[in-house]
Order: sequence, then C-alpha cells, then structure tokens
Amino acid sequence: MTRTVLESKSKTVVIGFDEPFCVIGERINPTGRKKLAAELEAGNFSTVEKDALEQVACGAMVLDVNAGVVYNSNPNPNETEPPLMTKMIEIVQGLVDVPLCIDSSVPGALEAGLAAAQGRPLLNSVTGEEDRLELVLPLVKKYNVPVVAISNDDTGISEDPDVRFEVAKKIVHRAADFGIPAHDIVVDPLVMPVGAMATAGRQVFTLVQRLREELGVNTTCGASNISFGLPNRHGINAAFLPMAIGAGMTSAIMNPVRQVEMEAIRAANFLSAHDPNGGEWIRFSKVLEAVEGGMTFAEASQSQSQAASGRRGGRRARA
Amino acid sequence: MTRTVLESKSKTVVIGFDEPFCVIGERINPTGRKKLAAELEAGNFSTVEKDALEQVACGAMVLDVNAGVVYNSNPNPNETEPPLMTKMIEIVQGLVDVPLCIDSSVPGALEAGLAAAQGRPLLNSVTGEEDRLELVLPLVKKYNVPVVAISNDDTGISEDPDVRFEVAKKIVHRAADFGIPAHDIVVDPLVMPVGAMATAGRQVFTLVQRLREELGVNTTCGASNISFGLPNRHGINAAFLPMAIGAGMTSAIMNPVRQVEMEAIRAANFLSAHDPNGGEWIRFSKVLEAVEGGMTFAEASQSQSQAASGRRGGRRARA
Repeated sequence: MTRTVLESKSKTVVIGFDEPFCVIGERINPTGRKKLAAELEAGNFSTVEKDALEQVACGAMVLDVNAGVVYNSNPNPNETEPPLMTKMIEIVQGLVDVPLCIDSSVPGALEAGLAAAQGRPLLNSVTGEEDRLELVLPLVKKYNVPVVAISNDDTGISEDPDVRFEVAKKIVHRAADFGIPAHDIVVDPLVMPVGAMATAGRQVFTLVQRLREELGVNTTCGASNISFGLPNRHGINAAFLPMAIGAGMTSAIMNPVRQVEMEAIRAANFLSAHDPNGGEWIRFSKVLEAVEGGMTFAEASQSQSQAASGRRGGRRARA
Repeated sequence: MTRTVLESKSKTVVIGFDEPFCVIGERINPTGRKKLAAELEAGNFSTVEKDALEQVACGAMVLDVNAGVVYNSNPNPNETEPPLMTKMIEIVQGLVDVPLCIDSSVPGALEAGLAAAQGRPLLNSVTGEEDRLELVLPLVKKYNVPVVAISNDDTGISEDPDVRFEVAKKIVHRAADFGIPAHDIVVDPLVMPVGAMATAGRQVFTLVQRLREELGVNTTCGASNISFGLPNRHGINAAFLPMAIGAGMTSAIMNPVRQVEMEAIRAANFLSAHDPNGGEWIRFSKVLEAVEGGMTFAEASQSQSQAASGRRGGRRARA
C-alpha cells in the first residue's frame, strides 16, 4: 500500500490509498491576489495568518505556502522570494500544527522553505522538464521529502493522456535513479477544463487509475481547473471530486473554505469506508447546521473546531 | 455495448454504458404516502398528474408507476390493483410522453400495466426468488420488455456482495433460458445504508463494475437508501450518485424533484463526456439561477421546460 508520509512539528498526515482524501489548502499564495502580494511586500502577514487558521478549521490537512511575489522594489525573485518563504513558513508554523507544502519555481525559495519547515514537508513541485528534474530531485533526496510531480515536460502540456502518463513515468524512473522511492512521488496528472475538452473528466479518472495501478503512486490535482469558464463551477467541482476519489485520487490542492467541495469530499470519504461510523460526517453536519443558522462556512468551522479543542482540554477561544 | 431500449408513444430512451445517466422518477407510488393512497382510493388523480408533470420537467427520463394501495373498502390488492394500474398509466400517458416503469408485486397489476402501456415499458421487478422468476420472466418474454432484477432470493438480502452478484447472475441465466437477452435485464445490486454498514458504498461501486464487466448488464438502484438514518442526507446522495456513475451505474430510481441530486447527476454526465459542449449543464444552470431568484426547483424547471417547448414551436403554457 502506497503511503506518502508528511509531518509537521508534532503531527503526521499520510496520503494513501487507504486513507481519507488529503486536502491541501491552496490559499496562502499571492498569485492572482494583488492585495495579498502588496501586503507581503509591505511585511504585513495578517492575511497569511487568517488564511492559515481558516483553512485548517475548514478541514485542510496540509497547507501550501507560496511566496511568489514580484516586489515593486526589487524585481528579482531569486533575491526576494527565499527570505519571504522563510518568514511565511515561520508565521504559519507558529499558528497551526499541520504539514506544509513548499510551493515555488525558484530554487532558492524551495531550499529556504526546506530549511525552515519543521517535520517532513511536501515539495511542490518537479516536472518532466530536464532542468527541473536536475534541480529539484537532488533537493528531494538531500532533505528526504516527498515531491509533487507535474506531468508536463519540455514539450509542454500534452492533451494526450497517454503522453502525460509517460511523463509521470519518466519522473518516477528518474527519481529512482536518485534513490527516491515511488511512494514519495505524488503525481499531478493535470486537469483540463471540461468546458474546453469533453473528455477532460474521463482522462483524469483513467489516468489516476493507471498511475495507481502501474506506478503505485499517490495523486493530486488542482481540482477547480476542471470547471474553468463554466457557470455554477462549484456544482461541477462537487461531482468531480467524488468521481476522482472513486477512481483513486488521494489528494487535491484546493480551497478548503468552500463548503460545497468540502461536503463532497467528506461524503466521498464516508462512502469509501474512510470515515468509520460516520463520526466526521456527523460532526460536519453540525457545521452545516450552523451555516443554515446564518454563519459563514469559515465561521461555523472555526467555531466548531474551537469548541472541540475546548472539549479536548485546549484553550477555549473567546466568543 | 449494452443498450436497454425503452419507448413511450413517440420517444425512445436508451439505458446504456455510452448514454447519459437514466433518471427514473419514483414519485408516483402510494407506498408511505397516506394522502396519495386515500386520493387514489377516492378516484382523485390530481397528485398523480402533478407528480408526472413535475418529475418530467425536473429531468426524469422514465416514470415509475406503482398502484400499490390497499383499499379500505376492499383489502384484496389482486382485485383492486390491476384496474388502478391501468387507470394511472392512462392518466400519466395522457400528460407526458416518456417511457414508463411498471412497478408492482401483484402479477395481475404487472400484466394490466403491460397491456395499458404504450411503447416498450420497463417491468419492475423480478428477484431471484423462485416463484417470482417463474411468474415474471414469462411476462417479460411475452411482452418483449426489459425488466429490473433485484439481487435478493429466497434466502433474503445478503450482506455479502458476492452472494448478491451470484443472485444477479442466476437471474440473467434463468432469463436466458426464456430467451431474454442480458441487455434487457437492469440489475439492482441493492444499496445498504452506509450509516449501518461502513463498506456499503464500496460494495455498490465494486458490484456495479462486476455486473457490467462480467454480465454485461445495465444497473439501477434506489439511490437514497445509501443515506438512510443520517443527517444531511442530500449531501451523501449527491456524492454517491457521481461515484456510482463513475463506477458504471447507468440508472437510478429516485426523486428527480431534488435539486442537489439532479445537479450531481448532470455534472457527472458532463464529466463522463455524456453532455457534449455542456449544453445540458448550461441549461440546468439557468434553472439554478431561477431558484436563487426565489422559485422552487420544480417551478424553475417547469418554467424553463415550458419556455423551451415554446421555442420548439409547442404550445406555450399560460403563466
């Protein structure tokens, strides 16, 4: 059984075929978030703090941390991104005890993140591009961490799922040359928008099954890409996630502050026999009741997780 | 490719591996509906009419018709159910042009339904019980109709999915002895409540795949049974249906007047490449917009289907 083990300071999260689906919170990322980018350049981490707490309360088991800001004061990310990554990781680790996913295309930022992260983080990411393989795999080996492998290579992203499978296979084989086992590779088979490609859903389901059966690897994806450009995107996402889980997908990088998607994942866990006695489902249903009573999903989730930590003897938050 | 062909007076519906999921509307059934039972005994068919129109507008492709009322004035259903079945079928056929599913445990009512139904209805149901096999299969052969086969036998309903598979196999083989082809058998593998049996979801997904691959049959189920006894049942159902569709389930007997479940099915059709260009999804999204504007799902669906039939040159309903 393939198990990808992640650790924070004191907690272990396993991505695996016999585990509940692993939700990796995507929010701590300034890409496309101008306000957050400006805050980070100004040394203001209040949004990072809020995003860390909210995502974990809503059910994120791992938090992605991306420090990809292009500073107005210094346009060279090789200089600015590594120290920002270190700072952001320190802040997030100070607030929440979940494993991190260190997300960057800047080699120095990956290494700074690896040095700053406690436990065993997930590195995000390597691709099948030659320069990325030669740059990232030695870091993966040196720090003995798992890595997200994205199925594109120097020729780009293929629309042919067989080509994307071969890219994943190449990465797994190349990693093996470095002594990195397949269970430390989490493959992203790349999700295309179903509005642009009618077979996009089917491709993912077939690929996930092949990656699992033929390469023995865990899988992840940027789930919301499936519904790009369509009306009522949450409805598509909320069917896609259970179908992907049914096909064998074991994690996703996604926004956990979305009720509809989290409900779909919790139901799919239950239906996959990964929620014994439905305890998690029943707990989640109480959050939904609070939402019906007028709270936002984030508020209701935070309120319940504070109450639960109070019951466990933790510090009860003020109302 | 397995194709189960159903017909109404003028329309054909195919249940099949390469077809959109077939929604069989379950509402026209007095079981557990005291008010409807009393109306039917009194000769009042207004609820039947409403249920027929609403279900089709909401997306039912086939309507189940069950006349299982025990009259206060005459407790013998062998006398009362056949003429009531005939009457109900005539009323439904007068209103909507979709294939019917004739649902009874009374042999005379099945035969009355077969005589009254136009086109090629679905017979509901045969089981693996010896007396049912000997009674129903000759009707299936005589009228050349497809039949729902429920995977229980004289020993009851087994909790072991392998036993339920063997019961389905027995029915398919027995039907073959009567000259009934496998593509005219739609197997219900029986859905257990996941709140009572942790593996209930997995059992269905595995069984559906086996039934499809080893017996080449279409499948159906009473979908809502999966969430029996649990809070927020719609959330479970809305993940179960896409997962079942992903595993190969091709139809369900269900309430199509439930927005959340219908949304999940329409998204799953799209993700299975059974909604070319997302036309159905975009149309459905407009219904959801009308719901957000304050209409009920049934009202919004009826309003849109009337507008659509107006555009197709049909008679526009009065507002």
